[in-house]
Amino acid sequence: MPHLDAERFLRDLNELRQIGAYKTGVHRPTYSPQDMESRRWLMERMAEVGLEPSIDGIGNVYGRHKGPGPQLLAGSHIESQNYAGWLDGALGVVAGLALARAGLPVDVAAFADEEGHFEGGFLGSRSIIGDLTEEEIDRSRNRTDGTPLREALAAAGLAGKPRMQLEKGRHKGFFEMHIEQGTQLEKAGLRAGVVTGIVAIWQWRILIEGQQDHAGGTTMAERRDAGLAAIRLLAMLDQEMPRACGERSTWTTGRIALDPGAPSIIPGKADILFQFRDVEVPVLERMERCLRACVQESNRRERMTATLLNVSKATPALCDPAMMAALDAAAAKHAPGAWQRMPSGAGHDAQYIARMMPVAMLFTPSIGGISHHWAEDTKEEDLALCCRILADGAEGFLKT
Amino acid sequence: MPHLDAERFLRDLNELRQIGAYKTGVHRPTYSPQDMESRRWLMERMAEVGLEPSIDGIGNVYGRHKGPGPQLLAGSHIESQNYAGWLDGALGVVAGLALARAGLPVDVAAFADEEGHFEGGFLGSRSIIGDLTEEEIDRSRNRTDGTPLREALAAAGLAGKPRMQLEKGRHKGFFEMHIEQGTQLEKAGLRAGVVTGIVAIWQWRILIEGQQDHAGGTTMAERRDAGLAAIRLLAMLDQEMPRACGERSTWTTGRIALDPGAPSIIPGKADILFQFRDVEVPVLERMERCLRACVQESNRRERMTATLLNVSKATPALCDPAMMAALDAAAAKHAPGAWQRMPSGAGHDAQYIARMMPVAMLFTPSIGGISHHWAEDTKEEDLALCCRILADGAEGFLKT
Repeated sequence: MPHLDAERFLRDLNELRQIGAYKTGVHRPTYSPQDMESRRWLMERMAEVGLEPSIDGIGNVYGRHKGPGPQLLAGSHIESQNYAGWLDGALGVVAGLALARAGLPVDVAAFADEEGHFEGGFLGSRSIIGDLTEEEIDRSRNRTDGTPLREALAAAGLAGKPRMQLEKGRHKGFFEMHIEQGTQLEKAGLRAGVVTGIVAIWQWRILIEGQQDHAGGTTMAERRDAGLAAIRLLAMLDQEMPRACGERSTWTTGRIALDPGAPSIIPGKADILFQFRDVEVPVLERMERCLRACVQESNRRERMTATLLNVSKATPALCDPAMMAALDAAAAKHAPGAWQRMPSGAGHDAQYIARMMPVAMLFTPSIGGISHHWAEDTKEEDLALCCRILADGAEGFLKT
Repeated sequence: MPHLDAERFLRDLNELRQIGAYKTGVHRPTYSPQDMESRRWLMERMAEVGLEPSIDGIGNVYGRHKGPGPQLLAGSHIESQNYAGWLDGALGVVAGLALARAGLPVDVAAFADEEGHFEGGFLGSRSIIGDLTEEEIDRSRNRTDGTPLREALAAAGLAGKPRMQLEKGRHKGFFEMHIEQGTQLEKAGLRAGVVTGIVAIWQWRILIEGQQDHAGGTTMAERRDAGLAAIRLLAMLDQEMPRACGERSTWTTGRIALDPGAPSIIPGKADILFQFRDVEVPVLERMERCLRACVQESNRRERMTATLLNVSKATPALCDPAMMAALDAAAAKHAPGAWQRMPSGAGHDAQYIARMMPVAMLFTPSIGGISHHWAEDTKEEDLALCCRILADGAEGFLKT
């Protein structure tokens, strides 16, 4: 059984929490000075535990184990959503460090921009498996302020650096520990979740084109109000999606931007961010058909034109049975009766790494299910417990 | 019959169009450097035509006629919406100059912030009739960037200046010439509209409070999605408002801001700008009851809380029969068979000035009805024609 230093693990987490601290959370958007500071901090910690640290041209930080194989890979991401939680991503990276410190043969990785500050998202994990082209990097922009990705990389000192690829055959599997970002564990009074699979996110943009006009001088009959078409289409999706979805599907409208957005102007344009998630491709395809039918119906009913653009379509990933079994056994030992198997409703780097090797994930409870908000938190005893489960599970899996 | 210099009138309009020029329109938000430049330009033109120019503590520019009474008042506003048209407001101010130049006994006014860049709106016309308190000025902020009104006034060099009040009994009536901002004249093949009354705008903000959460980790049943509550409430208003409105009422959702507005975050807050307009108070009150009932119903159905805030409630204004008759006669002479009487769907400074004196308005056609957009335009021959109608109408009214 590896000697896991839980106290040191928690100390590392709390030290990382100081970088970009915001209230009780952190603000470390991808490639911001705070994010880059956290990557430098991580490389120092990697060196301390005997890994060989490096950073690549997309910002991936990698700590390579120097001993003989077979190796494991462990990690997650280190940037945060804007003004968000201290554990989302950071937990899996620092847990990877703890495993290396405990003497396990692990490479540790922090994949860049899992949070999707830039168009495309999952830049780091997609890059390291060879799924991110130079053309996509040329095109991608920051979703908040429009900064081109190339500019952001240059400002962070990463321009021109090569992008690392995973070495085929080097790793027996990838472990990612993460907060649940929901209330299923908390509501069931459980302390750990062994993840069975990761949902895929299919992201869309709906652009509606009408005619900008004065809100007083234009009669209701004359109007081509892009905002009204947006409301009607989104209300239709609210009615129709439940007929297409699966039992655990989710769908979300994250933004409705009306242009120009003034009180006395009929909006000429609407720009909608819409996404849905499920673990089964046939369900995702059914939801896509429903979305397309609603957009088509909007264009039949309205004088405003709705255009549907696909932003991204991820592939659902199933976790590896042997890795899950090893985590089950470790959870049963450290948290008897206080753990369960469960799917992941959120996307994670593991879904891309799964294309190269077996993967598994372990969830800690999220207090109140709060996530992507600075109030996100998990009890320290649950963090320590899950790190022990992860270390034992990793060791158990290495023996298989 | 006054000698109206139509060529000079058009030259003034085109000169003013250069200040803050944007494509074929202008960008002169209230108290911006461009707006203040246009106010200085106006004071120079006023002095040239023999008026005594001044600017007051809210930015109203006033040109006082030096001769004996009875005087008329003529004008409108000179700032524009963002990146909007060259005639909206400017037309009525420059027409006032043309009347003074033609020898009519008119004071000319440009009232500040008719466009409502700042909370409250109609700052200038409300100030000059004594309807704007110092407390409201303390509170008001720019709707685009949040700048406090006091700061904007100080930056424009207006802090501490006294605010002018209209002199009771000085004016026989107020004439405001304006673009129609609709397509009623154009569709009917007409060249001028004598306005019968100005609708009132009742403006609202609807704030919805939910719970910001991760879009993947939170099941549909657990969510408190403020954006979804906004969509459902606005779809309900789309259904219910036609049951409450009058024949010519309009209602508009100008903005739906979801917070934080990211693709993978369930919105925790929604902020909606909503307004409706009618010329009859009982209809406005019916629409308010409908709005309140929909908000109440949203709060019965949803776990998200909607709060309705009134931003402003204007009073509809009817135009003066003698002034309308004088404009009718002038229109019949200059544009026989090519004019009509019509209500104004948009709010105008005249609705506030109507509390102090009789008012009338004259509409020019808007090409394609386009307004609050840089492509806004009117044929120069229609502008010149309407300025002639206005001058003759003003002279005719003076003789009554």
